[in-house]
Amino acid sequence: MLVLITYDVNVTTDLGKSRLRRVAKQCVNYGQRVQNSVFECLVDPTQFAELKHRLESIVDPNTDSLRYYFLGSNWKNRVEHFGAKVGYDPEGVLML
Amino acid sequence: MLVLITYDVNVTTDLGKSRLRRVAKQCVNYGQRVQNSVFECLVDPTQFAELKHRLESIVDPNTDSLRYYFLGSNWKNRVEHFGAKVGYDPEGVLML
Repeated sequence: MLVLITYDVNVTTDLGKSRLRRVAKQCVNYGQRVQNSVFECLVDPTQFAELKHRLESIVDPNTDSLRYYFLGSNWKNRVEHFGAKVGYDPEGVLML
Repeated sequence: MLVLITYDVNVTTDLGKSRLRRVAKQCVNYGQRVQNSVFECLVDPTQFAELKHRLESIVDPNTDSLRYYFLGSNWKNRVEHFGAKVGYDPEGVLML
């Protein structure tokens, strides 16, 4: 199934930037980074439980938020893109 | 139906910040801003076509991207949240 994961973090601090990098590192094991803080992860329920556990141990729940959207297996019909192509350099210019 | 709209824009420029504000203004007519650049919009197909048209006239397709995720009418079962509560001050601290 495809799980879309969106992450809101304050990257005006070095700690925030570091958390974003760590979240990205976990997510790209299972899929791709489609926007700066948006990840599409192909996981089965066990993998999702593991990923979720790891992410929630990284983020600061007082300041950051994670949202998970379950797009199921028929996800290709549920996604549309406009504009600059997918593909993100995590070390590149700050985008949001 | 719920359409999730995610927007990637370079907000290190004033023009980028302005585009994000304008995208947000359009989206919140139909729903809510759940993260800095993530909007959940409740629309029918006609409203979605109008909204899409407006958004795509605001963004710079060479540098920005928009993604639309169609979560259908049974969307409440497809969303999960962790961390800081939903509710975003668009004039607040820069988040992503």
